[in-house]
Amino acid sequence: MQPYELSLTAASEAIRTRKLSPVELVDSVLDRLAKVEPQLEAYVTVTPEQARRAAREAERDVAAGRLRGPLQGIPMGLKDLIDVAGAATTASSRVRADHRADTDSTVAARLAAAGAILIGKTHTHEFAYGLTTPQTHNARDRDRVAGGSSGGSAVAVAAGTATFALGTDTGGSIRVPSALNGVVGLKPTYGLVPRHGVTSLSWSLDHVGPITRTVEDAALVLAALAGHDPRDPASLATSGDYRPGAGTDLTGLRVGVPRNYYFDHVDPEVEAAVRRAIDTLESLGARLVEVEIPMTRYIQATQWGLMVPEATAYHERTLRAVPELYQADVRILLEAGELMPAGDYVRAQRARTLMRQAWARLLDDVDVIAAPTVPVTAVKAGQDTVTWSDGTVEGVADAYVRLSAPANITGVPSLSVPVGDDTAGLPIGMQLLGRPLGEPVLLRMGHAYEQTQPARQLATV
Amino acid sequence: MQPYELSLTAASEAIRTRKLSPVELVDSVLDRLAKVEPQLEAYVTVTPEQARRAAREAERDVAAGRLRGPLQGIPMGLKDLIDVAGAATTASSRVRADHRADTDSTVAARLAAAGAILIGKTHTHEFAYGLTTPQTHNARDRDRVAGGSSGGSAVAVAAGTATFALGTDTGGSIRVPSALNGVVGLKPTYGLVPRHGVTSLSWSLDHVGPITRTVEDAALVLAALAGHDPRDPASLATSGDYRPGAGTDLTGLRVGVPRNYYFDHVDPEVEAAVRRAIDTLESLGARLVEVEIPMTRYIQATQWGLMVPEATAYHERTLRAVPELYQADVRILLEAGELMPAGDYVRAQRARTLMRQAWARLLDDVDVIAAPTVPVTAVKAGQDTVTWSDGTVEGVADAYVRLSAPANITGVPSLSVPVGDDTAGLPIGMQLLGRPLGEPVLLRMGHAYEQTQPARQLATV
Repeated sequence: MQPYELSLTAASEAIRTRKLSPVELVDSVLDRLAKVEPQLEAYVTVTPEQARRAAREAERDVAAGRLRGPLQGIPMGLKDLIDVAGAATTASSRVRADHRADTDSTVAARLAAAGAILIGKTHTHEFAYGLTTPQTHNARDRDRVAGGSSGGSAVAVAAGTATFALGTDTGGSIRVPSALNGVVGLKPTYGLVPRHGVTSLSWSLDHVGPITRTVEDAALVLAALAGHDPRDPASLATSGDYRPGAGTDLTGLRVGVPRNYYFDHVDPEVEAAVRRAIDTLESLGARLVEVEIPMTRYIQATQWGLMVPEATAYHERTLRAVPELYQADVRILLEAGELMPAGDYVRAQRARTLMRQAWARLLDDVDVIAAPTVPVTAVKAGQDTVTWSDGTVEGVADAYVRLSAPANITGVPSLSVPVGDDTAGLPIGMQLLGRPLGEPVLLRMGHAYEQTQPARQLATV
Repeated sequence: MQPYELSLTAASEAIRTRKLSPVELVDSVLDRLAKVEPQLEAYVTVTPEQARRAAREAERDVAAGRLRGPLQGIPMGLKDLIDVAGAATTASSRVRADHRADTDSTVAARLAAAGAILIGKTHTHEFAYGLTTPQTHNARDRDRVAGGSSGGSAVAVAAGTATFALGTDTGGSIRVPSALNGVVGLKPTYGLVPRHGVTSLSWSLDHVGPITRTVEDAALVLAALAGHDPRDPASLATSGDYRPGAGTDLTGLRVGVPRNYYFDHVDPEVEAAVRRAIDTLESLGARLVEVEIPMTRYIQATQWGLMVPEATAYHERTLRAVPELYQADVRILLEAGELMPAGDYVRAQRARTLMRQAWARLLDDVDVIAAPTVPVTAVKAGQDTVTWSDGTVEGVADAYVRLSAPANITGVPSLSVPVGDDTAGLPIGMQLLGRPLGEPVLLRMGHAYEQTQPARQLATV
């Protein structure tokens, strides 16, 4: 096994015990990158010199006993919405051609302090406003979409060109590409990870979180990211140790299995894989409880009703000054936001308030809700719609956001874990949704599930 | 002194020590009401039989030693936006002609449990959407406005037809009429008093609070009102004992005196009275600190930008079904809300977030900010504008909301206390603004100030 193939947890342990040098690890990742990046196009920018320099410094620190925790010497990718001092934050957009960040975002600063090593900035669907990331190719099949908007981050982690990465998630943008590339993605509780220095899509729905190869890896990254920062008005004054224990016994935990919404218009192979995974949770001791998802007919209108005007407000000036620099799909969405009346936004806010309350009641009865992350695996690049067995046609963006949006609207945490592949070899994801600040339960359950599965191979292209 | 003239605190003490029966008190208030209500028109509905019945019951309870705290047997008025089971909630509007509440609002239930006795429902500017309450006459001069929107409540308390009353405050609607009628009004911290069962004007700005004759009275009512209710999504999980101590020493408290905004375009007599009152605070030991009010040029746009679309959303159906039943001024505002783009509302929300942060920093440096409640005393009924000495013309509603709005936008508590009359004999109010949940400091300071002043007489008409 090459160093680039190691999980964060394994690489970290190898570095700590000096079986692996950060220099070897970074070199291995950069070699891998040289080989596969031309096919994948996961990165906007790669900074090999800085990475190698940081690796040598990490090597010296470890040799001298200056240990900085589990992220020390670990190569990472940051979605190119996340400010890193002195680097461009392009948001994968021509609008940002001249942008340069003066200071680190909170998350970049925290990861740097923890000793993680930046490999480069990864592609996003332009300004995170889409679910496919068209610049980037799926790690399993380069003719298929990466998913989005954190497509570059998920593909890099899946392909071995970053040991972990950060994404952002406004309507599924961490979880969707994680599911479509066979990696783990965590959208934390709203407010747990500060967003200062991260380009906003829709601030009342935006989240930052990790994309990793294992659930345990996600816990390690989350621990470095979480914690109050007053520069994000939504930031919560809480943090914690998220590392799950080694055990796989889930006795005492109740898993809600939705009887509505989450299994409607879902590909049969996706449904079968997720239900198998839920059965595994039961075999580990969890009790399955059928649950009714509330207010489902308001989900789509609420998600878009909040996101569209907030996104347009953020882009107001550049949309007027340089509309031609936006990609057509994003520009149309932004312009649509200019026409939206305030009443629609007010109604979406009220629906969110009611939905939060209804979900709080739902999560009184169960510890976790288990459901598919996305209803369909990665579609072909350029494919606009999905046709369901009853003849219904759904836009790809609508399909990919449909099962993710409730966690954005309500702010509850959601962890996507791989649960196998379909017959075309494309990954399937299951999401575990929990109570606000219920990350420890999600990570414990996801980690237990993972231990029952054969070790996953990295995607090969 | 007649029982109707007693403060809540004095009446309560007299009832507890059996020097006064609730029946005598209620009869005295109802006699007063029979005499002055035809001139004042403070009430939508008066329920004398129920009040007398409740008073007899309170009398029996007190005689039998079944004591229920300081509100037991105290006559009150409730603004007619506040649901009382079995009674109409007209919102002083023809739109609500057929409305009847099935259950008590949280505040009505809490006051009933505390033993307070309902005299009747008081007039509001229609649906609380205005600052004058045109149905009602100022307690000092019936040719002048009552102020609004809780005009009926403030006039009833000022005139002796209720010992205390409740109002609601979205842009000053408790404090403005309190100031204009020479009584005490408290807009509590956003979320401290639950709004379940209270007709909404603009839920992100709406507050419920007491209107009383003394600051100590306000503390007693607040203690009965505060406390979590999950049926109001904004409700905070906090309550407390708000009764101020007897002392008047303010040593150690810092009073911010605004160098901008709060004394701009303020009537010279109002300014002089407020500055005298601030000097009194200093003479009691408080330290005066000049402060700069932040983001003042965003206040008006933010207040209206939040209120107008939220109000329109609430009235959406009736505005389409029965527009002719609204008064013209209210209908125009509601219809204007239909034309407002979502972007304006989004920008108002962002400005609020920034303003909250800026005020939090401001209130790091001082305990309280002292300022005029309204820039001008009660105007003549029908007067539309105020002309300032520099020739500027301002709408009456804009002038009355101008100094009140910051506390609604930021959610900080604000207590209005009478600080004398102008040469026309019209009352002047000073507001004390504090930190979120800083009510105890405001009440302590207001109570200390009050003790330096001669006892106020009730308004006579």
